[in-house]
Amino acid sequence: MWATGMSCCDQPGLQPVEQALETLLSSAKVITEIEMVSVEETLGRVLAEDQRSTVDVPPADNSAMDGFAFNSADLKSEGSTTLPLSQRIPAGVAPAPLLPGTAARIFTGAEVPAGADTVVMQENCEWTDDNVTVLVVSKTGDNIRPQGQDIQNGSVIMFRGHRIKPQDMGLLASVGIAKAPVYRKLKVAILSTGDELVEPGTELQPGHIYNSNRYTLAGQMKALGFDYIDLGIVADSFEATEEALRRAAKEADCIVTSGGVSVGEEDHVKACVEQLGSIDLWKLAIKPGKPLAFGNVLGTPFLGLPGNPAAVFVTCALVARPYLLKTQGANDILPTPIQVTANFDRPKPAKRQEYLRAKLVINKKGEACAELAGNQSSGILSTASVGNGFAIHPLAGTIQMGEPVAFLLFSDLLF
Amino acid sequence: MWATGMSCCDQPGLQPVEQALETLLSSAKVITEIEMVSVEETLGRVLAEDQRSTVDVPPADNSAMDGFAFNSADLKSEGSTTLPLSQRIPAGVAPAPLLPGTAARIFTGAEVPAGADTVVMQENCEWTDDNVTVLVVSKTGDNIRPQGQDIQNGSVIMFRGHRIKPQDMGLLASVGIAKAPVYRKLKVAILSTGDELVEPGTELQPGHIYNSNRYTLAGQMKALGFDYIDLGIVADSFEATEEALRRAAKEADCIVTSGGVSVGEEDHVKACVEQLGSIDLWKLAIKPGKPLAFGNVLGTPFLGLPGNPAAVFVTCALVARPYLLKTQGANDILPTPIQVTANFDRPKPAKRQEYLRAKLVINKKGEACAELAGNQSSGILSTASVGNGFAIHPLAGTIQMGEPVAFLLFSDLLF
Repeated sequence: MWATGMSCCDQPGLQPVEQALETLLSSAKVITEIEMVSVEETLGRVLAEDQRSTVDVPPADNSAMDGFAFNSADLKSEGSTTLPLSQRIPAGVAPAPLLPGTAARIFTGAEVPAGADTVVMQENCEWTDDNVTVLVVSKTGDNIRPQGQDIQNGSVIMFRGHRIKPQDMGLLASVGIAKAPVYRKLKVAILSTGDELVEPGTELQPGHIYNSNRYTLAGQMKALGFDYIDLGIVADSFEATEEALRRAAKEADCIVTSGGVSVGEEDHVKACVEQLGSIDLWKLAIKPGKPLAFGNVLGTPFLGLPGNPAAVFVTCALVARPYLLKTQGANDILPTPIQVTANFDRPKPAKRQEYLRAKLVINKKGEACAELAGNQSSGILSTASVGNGFAIHPLAGTIQMGEPVAFLLFSDLLF
Repeated sequence: MWATGMSCCDQPGLQPVEQALETLLSSAKVITEIEMVSVEETLGRVLAEDQRSTVDVPPADNSAMDGFAFNSADLKSEGSTTLPLSQRIPAGVAPAPLLPGTAARIFTGAEVPAGADTVVMQENCEWTDDNVTVLVVSKTGDNIRPQGQDIQNGSVIMFRGHRIKPQDMGLLASVGIAKAPVYRKLKVAILSTGDELVEPGTELQPGHIYNSNRYTLAGQMKALGFDYIDLGIVADSFEATEEALRRAAKEADCIVTSGGVSVGEEDHVKACVEQLGSIDLWKLAIKPGKPLAFGNVLGTPFLGLPGNPAAVFVTCALVARPYLLKTQGANDILPTPIQVTANFDRPKPAKRQEYLRAKLVINKKGEACAELAGNQSSGILSTASVGNGFAIHPLAGTIQMGEPVAFLLFSDLLF
C-alpha cells in the first residue's frame, strides 16, 4: 500500500511504517467468538465462516422482459409468425410445460416454461387474448436469464473475513441466508492522557486545552464497527494510569491510548505499561505521527498513539486501523492508494514519509487533482476536516505540480 | 461527476443520468427539524448550522517539545549559554511570566510563559535542577505553536451541511463544543414489489426467488445514516400496493421502491402512485438501471428503482443517494471520479453509460488498475460484492486496456 521509497530510511532509528505494520499485523490474534446475526443487522460486520449457496440464482430460467416465450423451432426463419397463446405466466407463478406449437405470455422475472427457449419482448409483437404475432425474430435464448447464471448451488458466495457492505447483505439474502455468522464486535478501550486536557462543554482554564483525541478515536472506532470503552482522560499520575490500564486490560480486546508515550518526565504510560506487561517504543518514519508504542497490558494488546490531534488521526487511520481490523478477523485491511495529479509543489525531499491532508478536486481537463487542505502541522486537525484524503510525500522524494502523486481517500481509511 | 459524453444521448427517449439528477436535486426539499446531539453521537449526521469557535486553538502559545523556554535576547548568538531555571511548566499548568534572564523547564503541550519567545528541545541542552545550558542556538519562535494557529476565535470551523466524520468529531470537541445541531435523521420507507419474491430463511417454491433488494436497500439506508421503515414485500395487487404506499407516505420523508414501475400489466405501482399523487417515468441512459420513476405519493417524494438486483444497487448509489443526502441537508453529495488504468478492453461504443462492477488492483508498475469483477448482467449481484467500485464505460465511448478509465469507489458511494 505504501508509496515508493519506503524500503529504507534516511534517518537512523526511524522505522518505515511498512515494517512497523508488518510487526503489528504478524502479532494480531483474531478474536474467536462468533455470533449469528440477522442479515439485516450485518452491515460492517466481519463474516466468520465462508458462505455457500444452497440454491441456483436464478433458481430457474426466467424472463428478462415482458413479452412472449416460445420454442424457436416454431418460428419461421424470416417474416412474422403467429402462434396460439396457451398460458399466461406472471412472476411468482410456476408455469406448466409449454404446449408444442404455442407461445406463452410472460412477464419480467417470471419462470420460463419447460419447452420454451426464447423470449421476445412485447414491443416486437402484436397480440390478442388468443394468439401472438412475432414481428421481429429473436435469436434462440434471447431475453432469458439462465438458471444458475449468477450463483451455482454449492459455490462459495462470500469468504470468511469479508466486511459486509450493503450489496453483500443483498447477496446473502439472494441465496436465502437469513442469518450469518459474524465475529463478535471487537471491544477497544480508548483513553487519553494529559493534565492539560479538559472535556468540551466546560470552560477553558489557563494552561488547558479541550480533549479532541477522545472524540476522533471514538468516531473512528464506531466507523469501523467496533464497540469502544471510553476511559476518558486519565490524570498524569502513575496511580491513575495504572488503574485505567488495569480496567482496560480486563474489559477490552485492545487498548488504544493517545499521548503520554514519549520520553518526557511527565509521561507515566510507558512506565506503567512496562510494569504491567511490556512495551516497545518506535519512531516511525512518518509525519505527522513519529512516536508509536506497542506492547501489552496484562496480556491485552496495547497501542500508544502520539498526542497531537493530527498525529492521532494519521496513526489511527494508517496503523491502528489495519491492526484492529485484522484482530476483528477482516481480510481486506489495507487501503488502495490511487494516483492523482498534484496541484502543489513539494520540492524538498521528505525526511519522513509525509501524509499531507489534501482534497481531491476536478481540474479543467476533468482530471482528479490533489490540493493541499492547508496547514500540515501535527497540532492541527481542521485540515483533516476540510480534506478528503492524504496525498503522500514519499520518503526522500519530492512532489511536482502537474505530476502524479499517490493519494489515499479518507473514505477508504475511516470505514 | 459524470464522465465525458453525457451531454447528449444517442438513443431517442433515453435521458442522461446527469439531467435526471438535476431534476431530482432541484426538487429536493431539505428537512427542517433540528436536534442537539452529543458530539460523541454525531458520526454520519449532517450539521444543521455553521459552527463557530469561541476560543483560539491552541488557546495560548504552547511548546511543541519537551525542553526549555527562554527569551531569545538572553542567548549568546554563538556558542552555549547557561541560564538559571526559574520555573517548571508541565502541560495543564498556568505558567507565571518568565523572570528576565532565566529559562523555564517546559513539556510538550504546556503553555509558554509570557516573556519567553523560543523553546529549545532537551536533546540540545544540558541541565541540572538549578540551571540549563543551551548547546545549540534555536531560531526565535522555534518549537512554539502559536495561539490561534489552527483556529481563531470567531471563525467558522464547520459549515451547515457537513456530514460528520471521525476527525470532525475531534474538531468540534477541540473548540469546546459538546453538543451540535444536526438534522433529524431522514426516514426512508423502502418496499419491494413482486409476487415472485420471498424472504430468505424460508424454502423456495417453484417460480419464486429470494428478495435481495430489500436488504441491499436497507444496508444502503443504514450506511447513509438514515432511519428506514421497511414495508417488506408488497403483493402484486392494487389494494396491497395502495395500502403500503399510503402508510409509507404517512410515516416517511421519502419512499423508495424496487421493481414494479415498468409498463407491464402486472405493475401496479405506477397506477397506484398516479392515483395518489403523480409519477414521471424516465428511461435513463445508464446500464444497468434504465427504468426509473419519480413522483410523489400524497405529497411525499417517491423514487421507483428498477427491480433487478444490480440495477437497484447502481441506481440507489448513483441517483437515490445524492437525492436523499440532499433531502437530509448534506452539501457534499456527489462522489469524485478518479482515473485509473483499465485492465480490460471494451471496444464497442456504449449505447448507455455503463457502470461496470470492477476491482482496483495494483499492477507491477505500482499503478492502480481497474479489473472487471465478472458478469455485468443487471440480474447479477455477486460481482457488486466482489468489486470495490464502478469503472465507467462512457456513452458512445470505448475502453482500451492500458488507457485511463474513470472509476467511482464504492467506499465513496455507500456512505
